[in-house]
Amino acid sequence: MSSSWGNKIKISIFGGSHTEAIGVNIEGLPAGEKIDMDSVLVQMARRAPGQDKTATQRKEADEPHVLSGLLDGVLTGAPLCAVIYNTNQRSKDYSNLKIRPRPGHSDYTAWLRYNQANDIRGGGHFSGRLTAPLVFAGAVLRQILERKGITIGAHAQAIGSANDEKFDMVNVSNELLNKLNKEYFSVISDEAKSQMYEVVESARLQADSVGGIIECAVTGVPAGLGDPMFGGVENLISSAVYGVPAIKGIEFGAGFGVATMLGSENNDEFHYDENGVVKTRTNNCGGILGGITNGMPIVFRCAVKPTPSIGKEQNTVNLETGENDKLIINGRHDPCIIPRAIPVIEAAAAVAIAELVL
Amino acid sequence: MSSSWGNKIKISIFGGSHTEAIGVNIEGLPAGEKIDMDSVLVQMARRAPGQDKTATQRKEADEPHVLSGLLDGVLTGAPLCAVIYNTNQRSKDYSNLKIRPRPGHSDYTAWLRYNQANDIRGGGHFSGRLTAPLVFAGAVLRQILERKGITIGAHAQAIGSANDEKFDMVNVSNELLNKLNKEYFSVISDEAKSQMYEVVESARLQADSVGGIIECAVTGVPAGLGDPMFGGVENLISSAVYGVPAIKGIEFGAGFGVATMLGSENNDEFHYDENGVVKTRTNNCGGILGGITNGMPIVFRCAVKPTPSIGKEQNTVNLETGENDKLIINGRHDPCIIPRAIPVIEAAAAVAIAELVL
Amino acid sequence: MSSSWGNKIKISIFGGSHTEAIGVNIEGLPAGEKIDMDSVLVQMARRAPGQDKTATQRKEADEPHVLSGLLDGVLTGAPLCAVIYNTNQRSKDYSNLKIRPRPGHSDYTAWLRYNQANDIRGGGHFSGRLTAPLVFAGAVLRQILERKGITIGAHAQAIGSANDEKFDMVNVSNELLNKLNKEYFSVISDEAKSQMYEVVESARLQADSVGGIIECAVTGVPAGLGDPMFGGVENLISSAVYGVPAIKGIEFGAGFGVATMLGSENNDEFHYDENGVVKTRTNNCGGILGGITNGMPIVFRCAVKPTPSIGKEQNTVNLETGENDKLIINGRHDPCIIPRAIPVIEAAAAVAIAELVL
Amino acid sequence: MSSSWGNKIKISIFGGSHTEAIGVNIEGLPAGEKIDMDSVLVQMARRAPGQDKTATQRKEADEPHVLSGLLDGVLTGAPLCAVIYNTNQRSKDYSNLKIRPRPGHSDYTAWLRYNQANDIRGGGHFSGRLTAPLVFAGAVLRQILERKGITIGAHAQAIGSANDEKFDMVNVSNELLNKLNKEYFSVISDEAKSQMYEVVESARLQADSVGGIIECAVTGVPAGLGDPMFGGVENLISSAVYGVPAIKGIEFGAGFGVATMLGSENNDEFHYDENGVVKTRTNNCGGILGGITNGMPIVFRCAVKPTPSIGKEQNTVNLETGENDKLIINGRHDPCIIPRAIPVIEAAAAVAIAELVL
Repeated sequence: MSSSWGNKIKISIFGGSHTEAIGVNIEGLPAGEKIDMDSVLVQMARRAPGQDKTATQRKEADEPHVLSGLLDGVLTGAPLCAVIYNTNQRSKDYSNLKIRPRPGHSDYTAWLRYNQANDIRGGGHFSGRLTAPLVFAGAVLRQILERKGITIGAHAQAIGSANDEKFDMVNVSNELLNKLNKEYFSVISDEAKSQMYEVVESARLQADSVGGIIECAVTGVPAGLGDPMFGGVENLISSAVYGVPAIKGIEFGAGFGVATMLGSENNDEFHYDENGVVKTRTNNCGGILGGITNGMPIVFRCAVKPTPSIGKEQNTVNLETGENDKLIINGRHDPCIIPRAIPVIEAAAAVAIAELVL
Repeated sequence: MSSSWGNKIKISIFGGSHTEAIGVNIEGLPAGEKIDMDSVLVQMARRAPGQDKTATQRKEADEPHVLSGLLDGVLTGAPLCAVIYNTNQRSKDYSNLKIRPRPGHSDYTAWLRYNQANDIRGGGHFSGRLTAPLVFAGAVLRQILERKGITIGAHAQAIGSANDEKFDMVNVSNELLNKLNKEYFSVISDEAKSQMYEVVESARLQADSVGGIIECAVTGVPAGLGDPMFGGVENLISSAVYGVPAIKGIEFGAGFGVATMLGSENNDEFHYDENGVVKTRTNNCGGILGGITNGMPIVFRCAVKPTPSIGKEQNTVNLETGENDKLIINGRHDPCIIPRAIPVIEAAAAVAIAELVL
Repeated sequence: MSSSWGNKIKISIFGGSHTEAIGVNIEGLPAGEKIDMDSVLVQMARRAPGQDKTATQRKEADEPHVLSGLLDGVLTGAPLCAVIYNTNQRSKDYSNLKIRPRPGHSDYTAWLRYNQANDIRGGGHFSGRLTAPLVFAGAVLRQILERKGITIGAHAQAIGSANDEKFDMVNVSNELLNKLNKEYFSVISDEAKSQMYEVVESARLQADSVGGIIECAVTGVPAGLGDPMFGGVENLISSAVYGVPAIKGIEFGAGFGVATMLGSENNDEFHYDENGVVKTRTNNCGGILGGITNGMPIVFRCAVKPTPSIGKEQNTVNLETGENDKLIINGRHDPCIIPRAIPVIEAAAAVAIAELVL
Repeated sequence: MSSSWGNKIKISIFGGSHTEAIGVNIEGLPAGEKIDMDSVLVQMARRAPGQDKTATQRKEADEPHVLSGLLDGVLTGAPLCAVIYNTNQRSKDYSNLKIRPRPGHSDYTAWLRYNQANDIRGGGHFSGRLTAPLVFAGAVLRQILERKGITIGAHAQAIGSANDEKFDMVNVSNELLNKLNKEYFSVISDEAKSQMYEVVESARLQADSVGGIIECAVTGVPAGLGDPMFGGVENLISSAVYGVPAIKGIEFGAGFGVATMLGSENNDEFHYDENGVVKTRTNNCGGILGGITNGMPIVFRCAVKPTPSIGKEQNTVNLETGENDKLIINGRHDPCIIPRAIPVIEAAAAVAIAELVL
């Protein structure tokens, strides 16, 4: 089903870019857990627009408003529903898109799927804005996961041709993750970040946009969780991560790199560490063997396509006249969504790991 | 849940490498459809072992035996259950693996997950042999899909350093797909195939194994199917494909290539074709926009890790003594599973597309 | 999962009696359908409190506020989320219930289930007030069902010892159903209704409450829908209806009456009607054979227990002191919830039938 | 979905009365649990046909054959698949039913639902024979539940006009349940049983059949399990029990009796027992409050319709000629299925409780 995810922890996301509100309903949360709303706001802020020139200038508080499920800061066990009111819509910007679908965007497919009744304003339910409720859900869940020793962090591993260091998949530290998972535009290397800013600025000046890769690590997940076949941790995480708009690829551990590896290189040899815990010398499997966690960090990377909404003139069709047409998109658009997408990917990971662990 | 997949079409796979039988139960099949068992056997044969030196020499008929759901070759609408009896087990080969888990394999995680009661013989339920029932399910479903004009085909796009041509994502022909989807070890270019044989043979001679990439295309899927967010076609396909052991990455369309593309390059511009149908000039989205099909071919690639069972001595732990140990794996193993995995990936695609279309 | 229901049409209900709002998120609605909010309000009003002396005097507008999914009165296909703000809470009334659980109510079990963090105010998420979002969902869905020729109506078949006529299960008319499904306190016979008022008034004067039976009929459902075994229409309807608090039994057609019938009496003989349509002479199966609709009216009855919140002193435990204790419940309570529960049962039926039909 | 049930413990039932085999695949079983096959056979025998004159004379071993999931009598954690081969089919008996549907049976609705491709032989997938795999699943699960102190037992509470004692819902003893759950045709009172035999014999002599009521109790379920609304224990149990053919009603605790009770009568007052455990003086709620267990015995009753297959001539339609027709059913039929249905209801309860508890 489209906008719901999970069995044990079930999230249902609703709203559109220009509806009265967007929000999320979360079922299955453990009663009695305290939720620190300041920490939630830190995560919301990391995703919020208008922070620097990589992002759209649309400013919104993105303040989640809890309707139910929380009493005096403690989860009651009943569904937790939070909404974010849409206060800064400029609907006029989108008036011509219903008949001239934007290339690379969902305008055309939504028009087909919803019998032309789709809400085109700001992309409607397909808007990147709908990742805000997901970040809220993730921000709640990661607090509970943290109390179980689980840490999640991500960074921009690449934007265009600019590359950050990759995680050390065997030894990624919680210190690093806890730094990354509180920043806006998390990057390990400062130099890489400077280069990324250049890449984005260059795209922006051309009224264009640019894609990239986000790498995410999760530490502290107990070994022995997950299931074989369709219940594997890769299935779980990828089914959540592909829920984030613009993701076109996901890989775990060595990922597509396995194609050119020999078994003897790719196999992660086991050994006992100083505490008598089974560890592996390498982590090409990304912490997952046979769909089940092996106690090593879970590491995955996902490919984020360049924002389809660009300022350049593009060819498209006119669904009204049935003829080819040209399109120039006005309005505010991110030349690069990677910086804001980092906490979203962390949130998707948090949701998946919560389903696995809670 | 581990070994089941789907809602409208639900498959449940059971069995282990050395249990009496393996099989699959399929619910939700449309009553009245004819099933040609010869076509099913063609698919089973493509996955079966012992065909050439890329594969294990264990020979098995892999003949599916239908217990229910089919009457005079026609689906009755009741669950279709088929089993394959395991007739050629050599259980002795695996006797030491329960205490010395194979690196890169599920032995250790299954041991944890199943309280040491896991069936280690031949990998048990984690065995690649469990893809045979998946191929059966796919072989049944693709017959029904073909009657709706949908064609599925895949090829080895890479094995080690040897690369095949990629699909022309805009114009991939049914002729090509229908050639690939009946062969053993499907590759577009004969020259690439020769190189791949060399790569595999080289690994085999070193008692090693090698990974690769499988590319799959699906044509004829109507535009407008799928859902936003978690109900997208990428989520659907990846949740099925990650059910195949050894997959460590999946990407759609331009995939990880989007990272270095500009929006103006990645956006697939729309136009009307000669029949007045909306098409795109490129297909970087792999036929999926906003989670929903746009009528272009669906194209995805997945990374297959080298078989973990290799002949070389490897370091591992001894779960009995609690000490580090060495392991030499005897028995029959594929130096490369790509050739046999091609029909498996097609089957996973068939299952996912059936869920979408039927 | 607790507060969600359905696969094709998925509803997720949230909120508590005294949280900021209660509401429902509905996924899977068909895009393009018009929703008449006046008709929705008619249904909300039938369930709303404060209408007569059978019901609590707590007055609330119960006005649903649509946050998303509806544009210019037309469903966009994105999730439809509606909330009802809680404006008239008197939380003080419930202060002592957390340690002295009300007999017959969920106070004790919720306290266990949610680690003592449950929201006790007004019954929290267990409050009958949570049926308002269900009525909203039903009111939306029945508009769509009505366009497909499906009519749903229910009545108080019994309150205490006062009995209404039962539906003529073979010939129940849409005219009758359409009268019942717009009224407050729907009863077929005026005389029965007078008797029911007496029964309720008598209970009220004793600071007591009284139970009853609601009978519901659905006409116009096409024959041939539903599935065998666990996918049967009885399973579907009962899993929705048992979601309504206070329901302790549900039966279809002749229901528990089958126990004393012979096969030759219970079997509904087939015949062709004047239009060549297969009908049955009797409808002891309640329109469902082998889990599948047979084209006759679907008829079911459910038992509604007397409201547990009564004014009389009752014995209970004190969870703080660990001793037996006495309880007197103050506040506003319905001596009989049947009148207000009728549209709730119709709504549960609408949700189940929508899952079957859409 | 039709023939599958459950989330944590998922059972998928397949087969038809006259297919090669029937069976069940069970996912989610806890690895390491021993399964005693003799106890399983006891349960299978209780349901098997041909035991006395209440039942059909068709004799079948009904011996389950485990294909996978069990190794040396211990669950491996992989799906447990068991089949029962159909060895005693007399298909000729059913040749005319496809065009002359049996009143009260699923013949007509299956014909519609499955595009006339339904397997009519012996009722196909709708046959009562399909309860054998359910009994197998229940027999496995109840062994695990018993180790957790949970006991399940049922009896024929009524057959026609002959009534057994009802369970003492507050004090039902495990001793009684453990006697009932091993017998064929479990009844508390010997006298009632004699009367029931008379009722059945009378029906049999008239070539007719008779219905009844089965009452089931479950003790030892921990308090605090289940969820509000749609996740309640009533929903869970009823969705499993309605999966048994011929069930037309289900009620919990006082059930339909609540209709004529006052709140002060129906409310189960709490008190501390001698061990300081919260108990109730009565158990009108059947062990379930707000959908959640309260630690008292779970008690439910279900109405079983008389077997539709009777020897008497009946009116029906001829789907070939489009005219009304007569039908005489030949073959072997139970005049009363209650005796054999008792272990089936226990099995359905076991499956539901396992989903709740494991």
